[in-house]
Amino acid sequence: MIQKTAILLIHCPDQAGILAAVTDFISNNQGNIITLEQHVEEFEKHFFMRVEWSLENFSIPREKISEFFGTLVASKFGMLYNICFNDFRPKIALFVSKYSHCFFDILSRYESKEWKIEIPLIISNHEKFKYIAERYKIPFHCIPITKENKAEAEANEIKLLQENNIDLVVLARYMQVLTGNFIDKYPNKIINIHHSSLPAFAGAKPYESAYKRGVKLVGATAHYVTEDLDAGPIIAQEVRPVSHKEGLKDLKRKGKNTEKFVLAQAIWLHLNHKIISYKNKTIIFS
Amino acid sequence: MIQKTAILLIHCPDQAGILAAVTDFISNNQGNIITLEQHVEEFEKHFFMRVEWSLENFSIPREKISEFFGTLVASKFGMLYNICFNDFRPKIALFVSKYSHCFFDILSRYESKEWKIEIPLIISNHEKFKYIAERYKIPFHCIPITKENKAEAEANEIKLLQENNIDLVVLARYMQVLTGNFIDKYPNKIINIHHSSLPAFAGAKPYESAYKRGVKLVGATAHYVTEDLDAGPIIAQEVRPVSHKEGLKDLKRKGKNTEKFVLAQAIWLHLNHKIISYKNKTIIFS
Amino acid sequence: MIQKTAILLIHCPDQAGILAAVTDFISNNQGNIITLEQHVEEFEKHFFMRVEWSLENFSIPREKISEFFGTLVASKFGMLYNICFNDFRPKIALFVSKYSHCFFDILSRYESKEWKIEIPLIISNHEKFKYIAERYKIPFHCIPITKENKAEAEANEIKLLQENNIDLVVLARYMQVLTGNFIDKYPNKIINIHHSSLPAFAGAKPYESAYKRGVKLVGATAHYVTEDLDAGPIIAQEVRPVSHKEGLKDLKRKGKNTEKFVLAQAIWLHLNHKIISYKNKTIIFS
Amino acid sequence: MIQKTAILLIHCPDQAGILAAVTDFISNNQGNIITLEQHVEEFEKHFFMRVEWSLENFSIPREKISEFFGTLVASKFGMLYNICFNDFRPKIALFVSKYSHCFFDILSRYESKEWKIEIPLIISNHEKFKYIAERYKIPFHCIPITKENKAEAEANEIKLLQENNIDLVVLARYMQVLTGNFIDKYPNKIINIHHSSLPAFAGAKPYESAYKRGVKLVGATAHYVTEDLDAGPIIAQEVRPVSHKEGLKDLKRKGKNTEKFVLAQAIWLHLNHKIISYKNKTIIFS
Repeated sequence: MIQKTAILLIHCPDQAGILAAVTDFISNNQGNIITLEQHVEEFEKHFFMRVEWSLENFSIPREKISEFFGTLVASKFGMLYNICFNDFRPKIALFVSKYSHCFFDILSRYESKEWKIEIPLIISNHEKFKYIAERYKIPFHCIPITKENKAEAEANEIKLLQENNIDLVVLARYMQVLTGNFIDKYPNKIINIHHSSLPAFAGAKPYESAYKRGVKLVGATAHYVTEDLDAGPIIAQEVRPVSHKEGLKDLKRKGKNTEKFVLAQAIWLHLNHKIISYKNKTIIFS
Repeated sequence: MIQKTAILLIHCPDQAGILAAVTDFISNNQGNIITLEQHVEEFEKHFFMRVEWSLENFSIPREKISEFFGTLVASKFGMLYNICFNDFRPKIALFVSKYSHCFFDILSRYESKEWKIEIPLIISNHEKFKYIAERYKIPFHCIPITKENKAEAEANEIKLLQENNIDLVVLARYMQVLTGNFIDKYPNKIINIHHSSLPAFAGAKPYESAYKRGVKLVGATAHYVTEDLDAGPIIAQEVRPVSHKEGLKDLKRKGKNTEKFVLAQAIWLHLNHKIISYKNKTIIFS
Repeated sequence: MIQKTAILLIHCPDQAGILAAVTDFISNNQGNIITLEQHVEEFEKHFFMRVEWSLENFSIPREKISEFFGTLVASKFGMLYNICFNDFRPKIALFVSKYSHCFFDILSRYESKEWKIEIPLIISNHEKFKYIAERYKIPFHCIPITKENKAEAEANEIKLLQENNIDLVVLARYMQVLTGNFIDKYPNKIINIHHSSLPAFAGAKPYESAYKRGVKLVGATAHYVTEDLDAGPIIAQEVRPVSHKEGLKDLKRKGKNTEKFVLAQAIWLHLNHKIISYKNKTIIFS
Repeated sequence: MIQKTAILLIHCPDQAGILAAVTDFISNNQGNIITLEQHVEEFEKHFFMRVEWSLENFSIPREKISEFFGTLVASKFGMLYNICFNDFRPKIALFVSKYSHCFFDILSRYESKEWKIEIPLIISNHEKFKYIAERYKIPFHCIPITKENKAEAEANEIKLLQENNIDLVVLARYMQVLTGNFIDKYPNKIINIHHSSLPAFAGAKPYESAYKRGVKLVGATAHYVTEDLDAGPIIAQEVRPVSHKEGLKDLKRKGKNTEKFVLAQAIWLHLNHKIISYKNKTIIFS
């Protein structure tokens, strides 16, 4: 059996005594620290930390930890913080259009229980993958998007997300741009995969642009979605070498492998509470 | 003893019979083909080829090969071509400013005879590395560049290159932009190292920009210099993963390793006649 | 529509005139060469080649090419050769035990038509994935293996492979060792994925061994199966960095990503007739 | 000016309260923690930590820190610990034979002050690089090794190391095996570079073996030297892809790039007190 743990993510301006205050809070209440990682950004002098401890003998009840930590520690240092628990099973909404590689990869990890998640719904602007959703017995909502119906379509999507208490939205090569209105409701909770090593080749048709430029590496980038297209905080990215011998079709074929790996990596980091997003960059704890 | 070989680089519009015509030209004159590689670009339908053969029993004298090939084969297919010989020892001019990592790396490969080259001169806009040049007994020319003297300074540089029959100019983190006038005299004969994975972070201060953007990969790109800054044909590029823990200094330190490796790789490819540059992209033979 | 092509794989002792003979055979019969790649192994002086040409105007009928090439060219040079066609749709038998990652990945590529293959049967020593096979409407054969029934079980497997005209056997983390009797019937037609970067950590429990040794890279290797366990010709391999922070579970989780990528890469190379296996090594054409 | 810091490396059996005790020791004495990283090995339940803090207002004098920490903290937890200071300038002895790539690379980093080190002596079993040592004004000791004189030769080497207060021995492709007697005097203070990705191809001629086996990756490994040849704790390793087209000479040429990078990386980690070696594995702090 896996022991139950609490995970605390913190950030605040750097100042003396933070580490001792946090570790004392845990130790004094019989929490055994399993892992602790901190970071100070060199220019901003901003402090970041992730600490995980066993709840076995912890004397503060689970539902009170946030309040107690807030009052006893966070308020003294001006901390923003977030408490999560390792037995929490997040609910993911999958958005997909017509490319299957990321979509199938995520469903495979779900099926094999590699990730402890629920997928209460799949949303697509096409009918194409309805039969796949049915195979997995996941409700499928086809919401076509046109210039005219965009506001209404997004309102429907948001309603579905809220009714299903969605914790994370994954855009698995979903080929529609979300509006600021949608994004604002899920800050740092929408992960997109872009098929280039950003900031190179942002926007449409990155493989075509990469081929045209004659680069020797092609990649993919997973990032949190912000209003600025393809410019949100980068979570994970990877490239693979390509040669002149590889035509556009080869670039796309190769790239799909990178896309699905990078997106899965980003989702895993998010699910394991290993990311703090700050000023359009991410701190990725190990 | 290494056998003497000829290397033929060709490109022309794709058409039937090229391969047979070239291999016949070599075989019929008792040349034994050692390696042959061809490529057809899918959109332009343009044909590229590199073939290397032993000169041991080849019946056409070395100095006549180009003329014979031109008349008997190239003219029929509208080929652009270039004949080189593996015992040719190219003359490299090294340009450097104040960063030593690429400069020292190239000199180390020269010293150890890893590359069969001559370095008849080093040009710098600073005095800093004069003592290094002296150590290697390579003439060192300090040519400071200001807005006012740029044309004159470049004229001096070009004069030095011409007097020394320079075959290849290597900009080993030389921090001055060359003018079109200079570049036009050495088309596909000036290799620069840029400290980012182009096209990301072209221009000044790429490490600073990469740090600010929060990318998870930093890299370097070696390319032929064209008038369009950092936009010439890419020869080699590579990236390494970085994390939020790595400050700007770490990015620069790590990046230096990539820079010197990528630049050396590009020089090696050039020295071994493995590059054809076409429409701002490179064909890199293996 | 994709044009129909023939692909010729050749090897023989190196000798003068091979290239000209082969390209003449194709050109003289109105075949337009699309891609040609050759290689001479330096110590053995053995010649390898892959050439692909359009069948559009080729004057020799498809079913006669092998005979004509054999008589007119191959016999003169002592060549071993193989003619394949790009519209051939190979039949793959999937072997799996209890790990799903490679199995699901291959089925996803099959479902999305990334690969032009048929999968007429799945064989497993466990019932676990029967429901998956049913979902894809692929006949599933559960053939448990014990020490006692091994010969009989393999006889059943071979019978199934033969009845289904299987071209390629893929061991997608199939946890049984095949006997020489089985392997001899499918030389260079059985691809296995081993979860280490061979020759390191051959045999059982490679992740455990890698963890114990404290390596900083973990990888996977796809190879043709030979009687010598984990020692067949390597087709593809890849590693990823790991740190001390990654426990055994992390190594396995990370490794699965590498395994499925490397296995898929090897299958793709095989399906595209890009591999010649010679003296326990592979030539991989690009 | 760079601020002065102390770096504490600790390990001990895992137990409650370690983190709080250490951070309290630092905070209560006005030390500002700059970076802290800890790790618990999952099977051994062994605790490791690296913490660095500013000495600016630290109330315990530098030369007393070790004693105070030992008495007040370490003894209570059964810790092994080591205190170092960021302004310490370690003395390195370079051992080299006839390959220059790692040797030149290290000297280049020394020359450019990339590393804050002294190199009081170079030891070689050949005269070959005497002129290089002279160029850098570093005393060069040629100590040829034969079966007969090995004990005496090593005694001379050890004497030189001791006279020069050597902190770290770097074997930059030094082609002699050190005896246990030598190694015991410098535990975790001798770094070797082996030209394969260990544990693959340990022992002599790894490139030849890699070529023969037909691997698709070649690499290098830097490790602390122990009596068991090529089996000491791995500090850093890296591989690069190779293809069948790359002959043995190419493997060696490519490999040299990896060797010098990996060795430099390992030296950097050691110089920055980022390594704890425990039970033949390394903890590498970031």
